[in-house]
Amino acid sequence: MFLGIDLGGTNIAVGLVDNTPKVVSNASCPTDSGRPYQEIVKDMADLCQKVMAEGGATIADIEGIGIGSPGSIDSKNGVVLYANNLGWENVPLRTELGKYFPNIPIGVENDANAAAYGEYVVNGHGSDSFVAITLGTGIGGGIVLDKKIYRGHNGSGGELGHTTLVFGGEPCTCGKPGCWEAYASVTALIRQTKAAIAANPDSLMAKLAEDAGKVSGRTSFDAAKQGDKAAQEVVDTYIRYVAEGIVNVINIFQPETLVIGGGISKEGDYLLTPIQKYVDTYTYGGVEPRTKLMIATLFNDAGIIGAALASTL
Amino acid sequence: MFLGIDLGGTNIAVGLVDNTPKVVSNASCPTDSGRPYQEIVKDMADLCQKVMAEGGATIADIEGIGIGSPGSIDSKNGVVLYANNLGWENVPLRTELGKYFPNIPIGVENDANAAAYGEYVVNGHGSDSFVAITLGTGIGGGIVLDKKIYRGHNGSGGELGHTTLVFGGEPCTCGKPGCWEAYASVTALIRQTKAAIAANPDSLMAKLAEDAGKVSGRTSFDAAKQGDKAAQEVVDTYIRYVAEGIVNVINIFQPETLVIGGGISKEGDYLLTPIQKYVDTYTYGGVEPRTKLMIATLFNDAGIIGAALASTL
Repeated sequence: MFLGIDLGGTNIAVGLVDNTPKVVSNASCPTDSGRPYQEIVKDMADLCQKVMAEGGATIADIEGIGIGSPGSIDSKNGVVLYANNLGWENVPLRTELGKYFPNIPIGVENDANAAAYGEYVVNGHGSDSFVAITLGTGIGGGIVLDKKIYRGHNGSGGELGHTTLVFGGEPCTCGKPGCWEAYASVTALIRQTKAAIAANPDSLMAKLAEDAGKVSGRTSFDAAKQGDKAAQEVVDTYIRYVAEGIVNVINIFQPETLVIGGGISKEGDYLLTPIQKYVDTYTYGGVEPRTKLMIATLFNDAGIIGAALASTL
Repeated sequence: MFLGIDLGGTNIAVGLVDNTPKVVSNASCPTDSGRPYQEIVKDMADLCQKVMAEGGATIADIEGIGIGSPGSIDSKNGVVLYANNLGWENVPLRTELGKYFPNIPIGVENDANAAAYGEYVVNGHGSDSFVAITLGTGIGGGIVLDKKIYRGHNGSGGELGHTTLVFGGEPCTCGKPGCWEAYASVTALIRQTKAAIAANPDSLMAKLAEDAGKVSGRTSFDAAKQGDKAAQEVVDTYIRYVAEGIVNVINIFQPETLVIGGGISKEGDYLLTPIQKYVDTYTYGGVEPRTKLMIATLFNDAGIIGAALASTL
């Protein structure tokens, strides 16, 4: 069994992961990221003990502990080099957590890479080339080549969300305008939905948002499925943005498998079918075998399971 | 010694390459691509004999023969799967050339990959991650990871030129509008220069083009260096297009080294300095070590030398 730790800017989520791989028990607490990192790591250790107790495991059952962290990671040394949303620089996560679990292998991996690795193990079936993208607050990317997570020379590779969709376009959190993330993340979809609601105040989409008290990534999809034309336009445009970026990834990597994850991926075939059509139309060249496109299956557990499985890499 | 064959849509160029690696002797003939492939391969074999004779080598001196071909290549089997501008599908180049040179290892590689591999051997110094781009008629890309050419699952990976710069923008030969190639290739630069000349008929740029009898990739650069404001605008915009795509490549790969090749790269620091500044400003994250950017050094010989060196991979 493994322990997987998904360290986020808001919460720390920890799970006991069996060899299926499935999350047997889990627990979480707020990250409260202003604190000294030693306190955050102590909370991780406490959560690990808690999920082991709940899952009926002891430390003797644990083959490895994996941490998925945002930011640029030195996985070799288990150090978070730089994590913007934690305010961290050069934090030695492995060494610090090792004080609580001295004889267990501890892996530290970028969170998007960890999630991608989880999907790779479950859905990649030993693919020679595998890419996972996560459509969330941003767009995360994880690349697995020759069965290894691709990290680049300095540990910050795989930032697929920060490639251009529109030169000089919408502002992006990274400082470079026009990134794919600024058009095809859930954050971007919500922005696009809000603009369409403002322009179509009598639409079903507007009513659904009012009833729910907020605009979410689901608002336009839900309204479109009920026949709202304005919502359908939002969805169609958003899907083209997503699909264009996926074509780019395929033109670069021609991976054996590409998995689409994140909350919006729960739309399933409603999302995948038009993406597949766009990819079939616009991907470069016509050589077989084409990339197999699929929806992620680990969803919210991808971070915990991926970190757990990557712990002994 | 090696033989390198650079198969293009217009010409077949063959060189005898020593272990420096340098081209000792070379020869070429028109491709005349409508012919049966057997005739084209016979010309390759004849050119090989010719450069060996001129270079004072015999077949006993040859360690390998490498062919760089446009299109999607099955390098394992030495087959050109699909090459648009040759009108080829499933052409068994290795088998056919092997009829003339039965006991020599023969490699077949995508031409951009071959050129990138040549630059890697000469300038990569064993880099764990290396990318070369060629700014030519199109934009070619070659990726060398863990000392191996990255080809993707089906042999058509590395099409860096066919990633988006402007969603829905300028038409591209690949059918997907807005590709980086449609903005940052020499073909695109010539189009941009022609438009600027039409808008500024009294500019020095217009005069240089008239004197030369044509607009080339050098027209705007030459005029800008002589103080022509309209030309400087063309150059500045073009360099931003080039640099934006390079930022994308770095955000994905964070390679140890990235080499810029193709005719326009002969501009040297005049091109590299503003690109470096743009990359420093817009690349994601701030983690060291940063990608080392450099200008290619093999230039026109990259195809021949790269194919030659890749022949025994």
